[in-house]
Parts: sequence; structure tokens; C-alpha cells
Amino acid sequence: MEFSDKLDTAQFLQHQLQEVINLLQKQQLEKSLVERGPVTNHELVEAVLHKQQQTRLQEKFAPLHPADIAYILESLPLDQRKTAWDAIKTDHEGQVLLEVSDAVRQTLISGMAVEELASVAGSLDADELADLAADLPKRAMLKILRSLNSTERTHLNTLLAYQDNQVGALMDFGMITIRDDISLKAISTYIRKLGKLPSHTDKLFVVDQRNRVKGILPLQRLLTHAPTQHVANVMVTDYVMFQADQDTAEAARAFERYNLISAPVVNQNGELQGRLCVDSILDFIREKTNEDLLTQAGVTEEEDLFSSVWKSAKNRWGWLLINITTAFVSTRIIGLFEDVILQLVALASLMPIVAAMGGNTGNQTSMLIIRSLALGQITPTNVRRLIKKELTLAIVNGCFIGFIMGALGFLLYRDTALAAVMAAAMFSNLLVAVVAGLSIPLLRHKYGKDPAVGTSVILTSITDSMGFFIFLGLASLFLVH
Amino acid sequence: MEFSDKLDTAQFLQHQLQEVINLLQKQQLEKSLVERGPVTNHELVEAVLHKQQQTRLQEKFAPLHPADIAYILESLPLDQRKTAWDAIKTDHEGQVLLEVSDAVRQTLISGMAVEELASVAGSLDADELADLAADLPKRAMLKILRSLNSTERTHLNTLLAYQDNQVGALMDFGMITIRDDISLKAISTYIRKLGKLPSHTDKLFVVDQRNRVKGILPLQRLLTHAPTQHVANVMVTDYVMFQADQDTAEAARAFERYNLISAPVVNQNGELQGRLCVDSILDFIREKTNEDLLTQAGVTEEEDLFSSVWKSAKNRWGWLLINITTAFVSTRIIGLFEDVILQLVALASLMPIVAAMGGNTGNQTSMLIIRSLALGQITPTNVRRLIKKELTLAIVNGCFIGFIMGALGFLLYRDTALAAVMAAAMFSNLLVAVVAGLSIPLLRHKYGKDPAVGTSVILTSITDSMGFFIFLGLASLFLVH
Repeated sequence: MEFSDKLDTAQFLQHQLQEVINLLQKQQLEKSLVERGPVTNHELVEAVLHKQQQTRLQEKFAPLHPADIAYILESLPLDQRKTAWDAIKTDHEGQVLLEVSDAVRQTLISGMAVEELASVAGSLDADELADLAADLPKRAMLKILRSLNSTERTHLNTLLAYQDNQVGALMDFGMITIRDDISLKAISTYIRKLGKLPSHTDKLFVVDQRNRVKGILPLQRLLTHAPTQHVANVMVTDYVMFQADQDTAEAARAFERYNLISAPVVNQNGELQGRLCVDSILDFIREKTNEDLLTQAGVTEEEDLFSSVWKSAKNRWGWLLINITTAFVSTRIIGLFEDVILQLVALASLMPIVAAMGGNTGNQTSMLIIRSLALGQITPTNVRRLIKKELTLAIVNGCFIGFIMGALGFLLYRDTALAAVMAAAMFSNLLVAVVAGLSIPLLRHKYGKDPAVGTSVILTSITDSMGFFIFLGLASLFLVH
Repeated sequence: MEFSDKLDTAQFLQHQLQEVINLLQKQQLEKSLVERGPVTNHELVEAVLHKQQQTRLQEKFAPLHPADIAYILESLPLDQRKTAWDAIKTDHEGQVLLEVSDAVRQTLISGMAVEELASVAGSLDADELADLAADLPKRAMLKILRSLNSTERTHLNTLLAYQDNQVGALMDFGMITIRDDISLKAISTYIRKLGKLPSHTDKLFVVDQRNRVKGILPLQRLLTHAPTQHVANVMVTDYVMFQADQDTAEAARAFERYNLISAPVVNQNGELQGRLCVDSILDFIREKTNEDLLTQAGVTEEEDLFSSVWKSAKNRWGWLLINITTAFVSTRIIGLFEDVILQLVALASLMPIVAAMGGNTGNQTSMLIIRSLALGQITPTNVRRLIKKELTLAIVNGCFIGFIMGALGFLLYRDTALAAVMAAAMFSNLLVAVVAGLSIPLLRHKYGKDPAVGTSVILTSITDSMGFFIFLGLASLFLVH
């Protein structure tokens, strides 16, 4: 791997990508020259050329880190991506599949034969296989399962038994376990014999005969204590561990809070199941963040930058259709008041502000609540105080924004009654907005649903329709006859 | 620290929080009983009581991890938080200040005397001090600077010289440097003499006489290679390092990509400046995510859940005023067409859909672009293809949604001309939306600005005003006379 000239990682990657693209373009050119050229035996020449080209690409990819190859593949359009993928015949083809995004992985797997997939997957550990499992065709998965030894198969089954949001699904089995009655010297000898430690090994796990965790031995202690000492005297008994069925988001917070690198994962009986490492946590946080961002914008699945227009369109229509439905409700509410608008056309131009400001204010509240829920800051003991604060804030904001809006209405139309209705409607809709912004995420959370999903749509549809209804309703009561 | 019963970290924290709250409430009760009681010498009794209460709180907090104390303080309302903070007189008061959120930190610091702050800060390392520096009063900072030794002062100045988004600002100085001509045995002896390794030490840095990084020695190799070997033969020369003035977001991606725990940070001349660890990266990612989420909702600063209503209100008004301004523009555009609305009132109820659907579609596009920019997936080589794809998608979407909207308009008002105008306006506004959704984040990124900030407001103001303008404009051309 070429880390040494990778001081500026982003620039390094850009450079590698550009080189691959140049290579691919050159090959395209050569190919078309041969096709149009005067050669008689096209097929043979093309075969030789293809062979040469593949070799050149392989040489380019061979020294690269799997994550970097994944980045290059993700940045290539579909046709070039397939050509490049065919050329990657390294030992870490499986690692590349692990590193690419879900959407891109599908494009790569779809072009591979079952046998090829099974052999690629053969080089992976159980925890890596588990990450791929959802994307592999059933026949390939069966073939892989048959090729595993019994330990690996047990590991894989353990991992697949947990849900995506449980710690158990993110475990790996690269832990080193020791007993507490041996000396540090014996451990050093053992490690030297092993020749290699699993990545992210910052501690060894001390277990009893029944595989229950009794403590941890940080490598640090192994290095700083006398070799004659026994594990029992040196091990740490005050450490963080996780339950396999625990919520991963909670584990992620614990990793941040206690600055962990790795931690044991146990089952209900305290028996060691595997370990959780900070690299899985980093991936988890990144994925969760992306998902939240995209869900809020109504992009349901992860989208490959170069997936077909048709696939992308379908991916976004669900959301747009939901929005049409809620917008339709607003339309019908306005429709109810068409007479009123005909009598006072100023209402038509003022009503969108009332609706929009409600949406903005409500979103501020709901976003704060969603974030506080994600950080675990909202507890049964403080939720009442929080609600009281946000409601007071809504009244203050309502008076302030209501006043500005009333003044604006007066300046535009020189009509005191209209200005008063505008101010009153604004004030009421801001209250509606804050109540909705508080209750939607809190209720979703209470009933075990992700508070971030859909909150914004529901909220906006409430503030829009209520905004129109309150404003036009007040106008019909007080302004027209 | 009480890690051992912390199997379920969230539950553990809830429990601790509840106990602290119970304690605080009990104290409040005792105090009011004394005040109302028959005792003659109130002051003395209250002083004794206060002392007792402080002791009980101190005992409660003493065994807790600083991060857990921070969590409890964040979850307490202002008055209770102050009482609790006064009781925390442990050695890790400074650590607690580091762990709490910015908004809460301010409430804690504001009640402390300069001398107290200086003595608390005295227990912190240079990199920790740098994190606090922005929140400390100038006088306290000067006092602290005077109490530092010259190495610490140099370290602190180095850190403060970098901006928030540069790797240099996140460095720490807990690295162990070695020369390449010594044996592994000598290193083991050295470490044993040290007695303790800095946290997150997974590798030692090999430097030459001029302090330039020549390689790294993973602890793993120290444990698995023969003690007689020399560093030069065992060290890894193919590793990731960062420049101190590099963008932190880029470093964070490298940590994820290469699963790093720690990495050397160098200056322009390749001289070792410090190290970057995965715990700082985790904090950075969490903070950046929060900031992005809140910024999008228009909450400018981090908000303490219990900060005063007045402070919160001011924190949110900036955004609401911007929204009023953009909504005002829409109002005036509609105002231009009041005659048209009077002639065909159906326009008033249909126009909000055209505007809203534009906003939703544009946000989908911009969110995908913002995410792809954040992941470094958009490169000069693929941006043109991406733009072409999104524009094609906009045309497909425009036809689809335009058709639905036209049909809806026809069903509601049985007016073919109105339906046609509706469909055409919808189609055009979706094109406007996608062009805006593409160009705003891409242009902001090109000129070195954060593409996530403000994109949504600018986009919505464009799709709103253009939506009203296109729809009412087409209506005035084709529907009324």
C-alpha cells in the first residue's frame, strides 16, 4: 500500500482517480482504433489488447488500499466502473466489496457469477461476511455457508441473529481471551508465538472457565508491569462492556463518553460473545448521520451518484407523493374560503407567510428535541420543564413575530383590522407549530420509533393547513361580511 | 469509577441522575423546614445543614466518571445545576468542564471566581486547555498562562494558532517518540520505567535528530518481534500522517477509511508537531453533525436545554427574521397579480402547491449534493455527469409531477386551460428547483464555504417566489383577459 506519499489523503485520492480515468479513456480509444483499423484478424488483436489493458489496470490497483479502490469505483460512472472492477483480481476484492456504499455494491455484485462471489467471500471473516450477507444472492450465500468451518458458521449465525440496530450485529471475533491465573510473561510469550494481534487490540479479555468476563488487561499494563506478575493482580475490573442485544446508538455514546477503542460484548448470562471496536462505531455514526440527513430530505434509499435516472426517480417519488397529498389538504382549506379571498384579495398574498413562518418555527423546536433525544439528554425527569420552557418561548416568539407581521400587513395595506387579524393568526400558528414540534418527536420516541423520520413532513403539513385555516377563518369572522 | 455495574450505560446514567435529583430535592425540603421551623439560631443551623448536604453530594459525585458528571449537570435545570456544581470538588473538575456542552459550560464558568478557574485549569493538559480557552474569561486565561511551564506554554500557543477546522487544533502531545537505532528491548525497558502510556497509544513515532517522522512502531510489533531487533528493521514506513494545517473533515475521512487509532501530525517541513487520536475525531464528527442539523433548522448556537427563554428566543430570531424577509418577497410577487386572482380565485388555492413542491424537490437534490460533497465523492471529473443526470431526472420528475398536478387541477375545477397552466408551472418550477438545488451547494463549495449552511433558506426562497411568479404569470397570460 502506498501510504508514504499520502500526506494529503484527499489529493492523493484525486490523483489516483484521475490516473484510472486516463487509463480507461486511453483503452477506449485503443479499442475503437483497432475496430476501425485495417487489421484483418480483429478478434485476436482485440483479445490481446484486452489482456494488456487488464494487466495495466491491475498494476494500477494492486498497491492501493481497499478503501481507496472503493472510493475510485464509487466515483466512476457505471460502464467504466464495471471495466475497472473486472480488472481488480487482488486478494482483497472482498475488502473492496465491504468498503463500497450499499448502492455501489449492488452494481458490482450484479455482474458477478455465483462461483466468483463465493470465492471472493471465502477470504472474509465472519463479521465481514455478515455485513455483505444482505446483498449477496441466496445461492452464493449457501455456497459460502457450506465452505465455512463450524466455528466460522457459528460466528456468522450469531451475527445474523441480531438486528441492524443491536450491538451484536456489529461485533467481531478478533478478541484474545486469557485466564487470570497466568503470568504476564506467559502472555508475552503467547503473543510472540501468535506473531500478529487482531487490529484494534488495545486490551485482552480475562474470562473464567465458563467464558464469563472477569476483567480486562490493557496492553499498556502488559508493557508497564513486571513480567512475573499474575493477570489477577494486574487486570482492570472496572471497565465498560456491552450486552449483545443493546441499542447500538447507546453503545456509540458510551464509546464517545469513555473514549473506548474496544470493549467486550456479552450475552444475558455475562458470557463473552465478541468485541465491539471503535472503527465499527465510526462507520455506524457516519451511516446513521447520512441516513438521517437523506430521510429528512425524503430520499429513501442510499443513492449511487451514477445510478440510472429511472432508479433515482422512483427513489424520490414516494416522498413527493406524500407532499402532494399534504399540499392538497392545504389547497382544499384555502378552497373553503374562496369567497372571503374574493372580498379581500390581500388575504391571498399574506396567507403564505403565516403558513411558512409556522413551519420554520416548528422545525426549530423539533430539531432541538430530535437532537437532544439522540444525545440521550431528554429524561422523564426533565421533559416537563422542557415543555414548559418551549411553550413560554412560543408565546414570546409569537408576540414578537406577530407584532412584526401585523406591522408589515398594516404598512402594505393600511388596514388596521387586517393587521390585527394577521398578528393574531401569526401568534396562534406559532403556538400550533411549537406544540407540534414538541409532541411529534416526543410521541414517536415514546412509542419506540425514530423521532427524526417524517417529523418534518407531518409538522409542515400541520402548520400549513392550520396556518391557512386560522388566518382565513379569522378574516372571514372579522374582516368580511 | 463505577464501571462494573454499568452494563447498561444508559440505565446506569438515568439511575445516577435520579439519585442526584432526589438528593437535591431532599435538601431543598430540609432547608425550607429549617427556615420555617422553631429554631432560634437559624444561621448556624443552616450552615451546618449546608455542610452536611454538600458532603452528601460530594460522596455521590466522587466515584463517577467526569463524562457522567457532565451528563448529569446537563440534565439539571439551572438552579439545581449550580448547587450540584458547587459540590463537585474533585480532582477532575477540569475534566467535567471539558465534557459538558458549550452552552452548559458557560453557565458553570459564569459562577466561578478567576482564582478558582485558574486552579481548576491547572490540572489540565495543554490540548485540554486549548479546548476551554474560548470560554474562559481573559483574566483567568492570563493567570493560567503564567502558571504554565515553557513546554506547556509552547504547546498551548501551537494549538491556539490553528483554526477550529484544522487538524492542528485537535492535536494532543501525548506521543512517545523513539530513534530508529535502538533495540525493542530498550524500548520495553523505557516504557516499564515510564509506568504509564498516554491513552490511545497504539504506536510509537520514530523520528530523526531533526524531529522529522521516519516511521511508526505499532505496539503490536513491539510485542510480536524479538527484543533483540532494532527499531529500524521493525518499524512501518508506510503509514498515514497529517499536516497540521489540513482540513479536519478530511482527516476524519482518513480515520474512517484506514481505521486509525492515532496518527502523527507534522508541519510543512515534516517535523512532528503532535498526534491526532480517534477520540478527538469522534467528538469532531458528533459536533459537526449537530451543528449541521441545527444550522439547517436555523438555531445558530448550541442551546442549553434549560437556558433562559430570553436567550433561546434571541438565538432563534435571526433565522426567523431572514425567513420573514424571504416570505415578504413572495408576498409582493403575489401582490403583483391580485387582479388575476380576483378574476380567477382558484389560483389562490392552487399556487401554494406549485411553490411547496418546488421546495421539496430542490431540497432532495441539494441534500444529496451536500452529502456527496461531505463524503468527498464529488470530483472535478464527475461533476458534469452528475449535473447532466440530475437535470434529466428533473425533466422526468417534472413530467410526472406536472401531469399529476394538472390532473388534480382539472378534477377540482373542471377547467382544461387551468389544468394546463398548472402542469406547465409545476414542470418549470421543478426545473428551477433542481438547478437551484445543484448550483447553490456546488457554488458555495467552490468558493470555500460550507455547502450545508443556508442552502435550504436560499433554495426555498427561490422556489417559493419563482413558483408564485411562474404560475400566476402563466395564468395572467393564458387564463384571464
